[in-house]
Amino acid sequence: MVSEEIIRSLTVKTPSKIALLVLDGVGGLPVDGKTELEAAHTPHLDELASRSICGVTDAVSPGITPGSGPGHLSMFGYDPLRYEIGRGVLEALGIGMELGKEDVVARGNFATMDKQGLIVDRRAGRIPTEKNIELCDLLQNEIKEIEGVRVEIRNGKEHRFVLRFSGEGLDGRLQDTDPQREGQPPRPVTPIVPEAQRTARIVELFLERANQILRDHRPANTVLLRGISQIPEIPSMSELFKLTPACIATYPMYKGLATLVGMEILTTGEEIADEFISLKENYDRFDFFYIHIKKTDSYGEDGDFQRKVQIIEEVDRHIPELLALGPDVVAVTGDHSTPSLLKAHSWHPNPFILYSRYERADDVREFTEAACARGGLGRFLAVDEMPLMLASALKLKKFGA
Amino acid sequence: MVSEEIIRSLTVKTPSKIALLVLDGVGGLPVDGKTELEAAHTPHLDELASRSICGVTDAVSPGITPGSGPGHLSMFGYDPLRYEIGRGVLEALGIGMELGKEDVVARGNFATMDKQGLIVDRRAGRIPTEKNIELCDLLQNEIKEIEGVRVEIRNGKEHRFVLRFSGEGLDGRLQDTDPQREGQPPRPVTPIVPEAQRTARIVELFLERANQILRDHRPANTVLLRGISQIPEIPSMSELFKLTPACIATYPMYKGLATLVGMEILTTGEEIADEFISLKENYDRFDFFYIHIKKTDSYGEDGDFQRKVQIIEEVDRHIPELLALGPDVVAVTGDHSTPSLLKAHSWHPNPFILYSRYERADDVREFTEAACARGGLGRFLAVDEMPLMLASALKLKKFGA
Repeated sequence: MVSEEIIRSLTVKTPSKIALLVLDGVGGLPVDGKTELEAAHTPHLDELASRSICGVTDAVSPGITPGSGPGHLSMFGYDPLRYEIGRGVLEALGIGMELGKEDVVARGNFATMDKQGLIVDRRAGRIPTEKNIELCDLLQNEIKEIEGVRVEIRNGKEHRFVLRFSGEGLDGRLQDTDPQREGQPPRPVTPIVPEAQRTARIVELFLERANQILRDHRPANTVLLRGISQIPEIPSMSELFKLTPACIATYPMYKGLATLVGMEILTTGEEIADEFISLKENYDRFDFFYIHIKKTDSYGEDGDFQRKVQIIEEVDRHIPELLALGPDVVAVTGDHSTPSLLKAHSWHPNPFILYSRYERADDVREFTEAACARGGLGRFLAVDEMPLMLASALKLKKFGA
Repeated sequence: MVSEEIIRSLTVKTPSKIALLVLDGVGGLPVDGKTELEAAHTPHLDELASRSICGVTDAVSPGITPGSGPGHLSMFGYDPLRYEIGRGVLEALGIGMELGKEDVVARGNFATMDKQGLIVDRRAGRIPTEKNIELCDLLQNEIKEIEGVRVEIRNGKEHRFVLRFSGEGLDGRLQDTDPQREGQPPRPVTPIVPEAQRTARIVELFLERANQILRDHRPANTVLLRGISQIPEIPSMSELFKLTPACIATYPMYKGLATLVGMEILTTGEEIADEFISLKENYDRFDFFYIHIKKTDSYGEDGDFQRKVQIIEEVDRHIPELLALGPDVVAVTGDHSTPSLLKAHSWHPNPFILYSRYERADDVREFTEAACARGGLGRFLAVDEMPLMLASALKLKKFGA
């Protein structure tokens, strides 16, 4: 990885086009001797692998399991250890909330407090989503602003909600109020830096009012906040890489992550087929396409090996549409692994294939973890995918005299 | 490699167990077409490699030959460029000296000085060890303390000894007094930082008295000091990794290195068989076992290819005992290579095999340097072995939201 200053000095605007196809959580572990990728019938991806140079990537570092934030930032060419995306921000992006630079957001839980002020259930018995909507409406109607700061409350599922504070000079560097264990009182709102003192007071005032409003609403008679955060200041992809990038994704969180690095979000439908139609329709307007397939990860998280295989096969059937557009560079990979065996994100490296007429070939003939691990690119950090894609699109000048 | 702060925030205590089997200096170079590992008959290690994911590691960086200090620190998950273990400390650990935090230790040589005060033999003609013992006793009887600082002198072999100063507020950042060349006077005791001035004076007083005492003892009429140092401040493995680690080793230096990172040292015998018995006897009490095999390195240093092969085969016969205990994760590797051809530590990467039910397999079928170099883990830094072992024992949480 070279510094952003160096990359910025080397990138040039050219007409060549790059397509980055991300099968979220695609890497797996063997079940009955085969991983999901090994079990899937993927003639088009295998053919592409045959014409490409392949490798495996670590999103953060060997052994480290990445969340979606670091998993995506690294693929987009940003050091995932430098830019931290707080849980509040990620949850807000996940429900499609648009975030301004100074907005402070938190992940909220409805919870149950006893008469001594101790938390007896951090999730208020996982109240139904309808009850959650009702309580969020109640809070929103009663609390619209605090000391000139606008307050917005948006329900998630069950006991979860997102809380946003919008106003000038806010600073999200505050500790969680969620004590993480039952039998404890909520933690006070504590600023991590002096600059966050005013924001701490506003959040504290919000909590006091919320507690008054919810007092008689057992089990959900209080709220706990976690991951209080602001969007990090990230230079855009157009600024750093001189790209005009577009995002094609079906889930809000990934559109949100793409927004953070300055991609334009394209309208698309719910289905994988819709995403490839959107690609075709918008192909002329951009030179970088991030196409995100969510369901490989979803079925991995569900532990549904067979459905994950089916999604991989469904994507495979659309590869000819992608190639027919004639992109100069095609990369196919995952942001992290989600083996059905583990039902969770994992630390295992991501298979990566890079097609360009300006890349060497290797003898990898299929898009699987083991085959890519033997590929010509070897094992490398995902943050280096972007320089590789840019280079093989002839968008990077020589470094040094 | 991620920072210690990140690793510390991700590790969790779980019941799963990790065994790290280190064949010191196991990597080699071909003699008559085969390395020691290739020549050895190792059915059990090969079978384990077949069920594992394999790779090769660099202890420090490609091309860099590590000493035992950096070789071990990196395997234990510590940046070997951040924590320096001085030669004095390593020698002290090597003779089984227990070191306190403020102790300052140095490697000493008996040497010969002429009438002009120039060193004419830096090793005093390699005096016999018996003479060395006699001189160390003499010095120790005459010099027990200086300005309240306790002085301890322990002989090594031939002209070598270890010198320890114990007292409050000592600082070991002093330059060597050994001029490294004959025909020069000993260098004065020079502090590298102002905080070490008092310690410099104490060492200087020691040298004045030693010179008086030894004046008429040709050829050993003076002493030279090298590698004056203190143990580095290293967070323990329990603190960083939340492990309860144990060390099974036969040589003092390795027990000493393990002590530096907070391992409990288990009693064991002289033989390889004894080490596996100690493992079995203590298996319930710990969740991390470092098992050190010394003789692969010793015979490598001797240039004894055949004996090194025999030691590898001997270790192989004990592998079933290790596996029968059912550890969740087994790693087998070396801390550096010691090819018999070179009779010395070398820069060649270490073969590494990682067994866990949560790791992918590759098509490596034997524990050799060349086979592991084609393995699914590729080539990586040894400092990342620990995150990989922790991850595949499910002891690491996700990084980032």
